[in-house]
Amino acid sequence: MQSSSGRSGKGGRGELAIIRHIRSQAGLSNSKEVRLGIGDDCALLRPRPGHELAVTTDLTIAGTHFRMDWHTPESAGHRALARGLSDLAAMGAVPVAAFLSLGLPRDLAHPKGRWETSWAARFLDGLLALARAHKTPLAGGDLSETPVPLADIVLIGSVPAGKALLRSTACAGDLLYVTGALGGGAASLPHLDRLAKESKAGKMGLNSRRIPKNLEPLLARHFWPQPRLEQGLRLRNQGLASATIDMSDGLSTDLTHLCEESRVAAEIDPALVPVHPGANVDYALHGGDDYELLFTAAANIRMPKKIAGVAITRIGRMLPARRNQPTVTMLTPRGQQPLEPKGWEHFTQGTPA
Amino acid sequence: MQSSSGRSGKGGRGELAIIRHIRSQAGLSNSKEVRLGIGDDCALLRPRPGHELAVTTDLTIAGTHFRMDWHTPESAGHRALARGLSDLAAMGAVPVAAFLSLGLPRDLAHPKGRWETSWAARFLDGLLALARAHKTPLAGGDLSETPVPLADIVLIGSVPAGKALLRSTACAGDLLYVTGALGGGAASLPHLDRLAKESKAGKMGLNSRRIPKNLEPLLARHFWPQPRLEQGLRLRNQGLASATIDMSDGLSTDLTHLCEESRVAAEIDPALVPVHPGANVDYALHGGDDYELLFTAAANIRMPKKIAGVAITRIGRMLPARRNQPTVTMLTPRGQQPLEPKGWEHFTQGTPA
Repeated sequence: MQSSSGRSGKGGRGELAIIRHIRSQAGLSNSKEVRLGIGDDCALLRPRPGHELAVTTDLTIAGTHFRMDWHTPESAGHRALARGLSDLAAMGAVPVAAFLSLGLPRDLAHPKGRWETSWAARFLDGLLALARAHKTPLAGGDLSETPVPLADIVLIGSVPAGKALLRSTACAGDLLYVTGALGGGAASLPHLDRLAKESKAGKMGLNSRRIPKNLEPLLARHFWPQPRLEQGLRLRNQGLASATIDMSDGLSTDLTHLCEESRVAAEIDPALVPVHPGANVDYALHGGDDYELLFTAAANIRMPKKIAGVAITRIGRMLPARRNQPTVTMLTPRGQQPLEPKGWEHFTQGTPA
Repeated sequence: MQSSSGRSGKGGRGELAIIRHIRSQAGLSNSKEVRLGIGDDCALLRPRPGHELAVTTDLTIAGTHFRMDWHTPESAGHRALARGLSDLAAMGAVPVAAFLSLGLPRDLAHPKGRWETSWAARFLDGLLALARAHKTPLAGGDLSETPVPLADIVLIGSVPAGKALLRSTACAGDLLYVTGALGGGAASLPHLDRLAKESKAGKMGLNSRRIPKNLEPLLARHFWPQPRLEQGLRLRNQGLASATIDMSDGLSTDLTHLCEESRVAAEIDPALVPVHPGANVDYALHGGDDYELLFTAAANIRMPKKIAGVAITRIGRMLPARRNQPTVTMLTPRGQQPLEPKGWEHFTQGTPA
C-alpha cells in the first residue's frame, strides 16, 4: 500500500492517515500465508506446498456498480469485496489475501469533519468487516485521487493443485444446480430507485431508517450479498461439482458462459428455479447481483438438500451442443424456448446509472 | 478477464471484442506458472516450489498519472505496466503474470473508426509490448465504463522463499547506491507542457514528429521508462544489496521511506548523484518518475560499476537514526543540511494535472 505519485501526493497527510488506518486494521497478524503485508514495494505471499493460487480482479465504480444516493459507504465497500470473494467461491478456493486500489475525489478523502465519519473510512469499514468474516487479510494496494470514487479489488485464494472448480468441465448428461434463491438482488433496484427519490437521500446513501420493515429482507440481499465460499469449498472437497460459475451477471448470462466454456448446451425448467421472496421468475432468470453459485454435477451424484445452511436446487440438465441450436433452452407450456442471455441488459432502466 | 456487470454491459459487443483482442495477445502459451488465464472466474497460478510470490497493484488515472494531450496511448499503457514491474524489480522478483483492470469512457472503447486505431487498442499495444519484453503474460483482469480512462495493474512475481529484497533491512554503516541516472523523468515535464501548448495536441497525445530531435533522449526517459528487473535480480542473486526500493516518487522521498522502514538515517553527497542529461541536481534529488533502484550494501561488498549495462553509483551512506535529528542529510559546502522528502510536491506545477 503506497500513495500514488502524481496529484494524490499534494497534502500527503490525508493519504498517509488513510494508509495508517488501513494498515492498523488489515488483519495480517494471524496469516501464515502473508509473509509481508503493507509497507514495502510488494507484499509477499508464501503459498501452501502443493497448492495453486486463484487470482481475480474486480473494478467497482461509483455510478456504475453502486450509487452514492442509494448505497451507504459501508454497503459499497462490502459489495466491492463480495464480488471478488464470490469468484474465489466459484473456484472452490480459500481466501489468502485481498489487495485494494482505491480512488477517491479529494473531498471524500479529506473530509471537513472527522476522518472516522468520512465516506472513505466508512467504505473501508464495510469492506474490512466482510474481509474479517472470511479471514481475509488486506495485504496491500494503492491510493490515488480520482474524479469519482472507485475501487479495484484483487482477491488471491488457495486451492490444491489441479483441484480448482472450473467453468469449462461440464459434460452433457450432468444435472444443473444453484445455491440459494435468485432474483433478489435485481428485484431490489426499482424499490431503491423509488425510495431514493422519496427521501431525496444525500451523498451518504439511504440509511436504514428510510427503509420500510417489509422491504428489509429483500434490500439486504442487494446491500449485503453473501459470497458462497463455504458452499464452493464443500462442492470441491466432497467432489460434488463437475463445473461451477458464480452468478454476478444473472442466470441466463452466466449459464451461457458456462456452456460456451464447456462446449455443451443446457436446458432449464423455470418452474424449478428458486425465486427469492419479493422477486419473480423474470428477475430470477435474468437479474444479476445475486452472487449465488451455478454448478453442474454428474447424474449419479447424491446431492445434499443444503450445504452449510444454504439450499441446493436442481434446475435443469446439460445437453450436447448442436450446431445452429440455441445454447440454453427452457421448458415452457408451449414446448422448448431459447433462453437468451440478457442479464444486465434486461435491467438497463433500473440498473445503477 | 470478464466485463463487469453494471452499465458496462450495455452494447456488450465492444467489451467482448476488447476481451477477445486481449486474450489473443496475452502471451499465455509459454508460461509454466500460469495454469489458467483469461476466461474463468479466476486465473490459476502454480507457484514454483520453494518460492514466494511478490504482489503489487498500481492505479493509473488519466489526468493524474498521464495526460491525454501529452502521452500517446502506447506510452500511457507502457508507463502503467512499468510502475508495477519496477516494484517487482525492487524485490528482486521475476514477473509471473500481470492482471489489468481497465476503465474506459464509452467513446474510447467504442470508437467510430476501426478498433485497431482506437485509444484503447493503442493503450493495450503499449502495455503488451512491454509485457512481452519482460516475458510477462496477461492472465486476467476486468473491464468497465468509467468517466476517465484508468487502469489498475497487478503484477505478480516469483522469488525464492526468504530471499526477497526489502526496504526494511538497511543497516547503519551500509553504503548507498543508485542505478542509472536521475531527474530525467521530471525534467521532461516543463518541455512537455510547452510542446503540448505549441502544438495544441489532440486527444491522442504528442506524436514523435512534434518532438525536436535534441529533446528525444530526455523525453524518451519520461515516455518509456525501463524497469530495472535484470538489475534487481542480480542484486538479489549475487547477494549485493542489503535493502532496496524503487524510485517512482523521487530520491528524497523514497530514501526517507527506506530509512523509516529500516529505522536508520542516511547521508548523501549531492556531488555524487548521477544527473540525467537535460536534468539538474534539483530534479535528480526530488523528481519522481525515474524508476531506478535505490539500494544499500554492506561496506565490504565489492560493487560492480555496471549491472547489465546500467551504471551503479555510490551516493552516500547509512547512519544510526538519532532522536530529533533529520532522517536524511546532505553534505554541502556549508556543512550538513537536512534533505526534506519533497518528491512530487516539488513538481506540483509541472506534474500532469
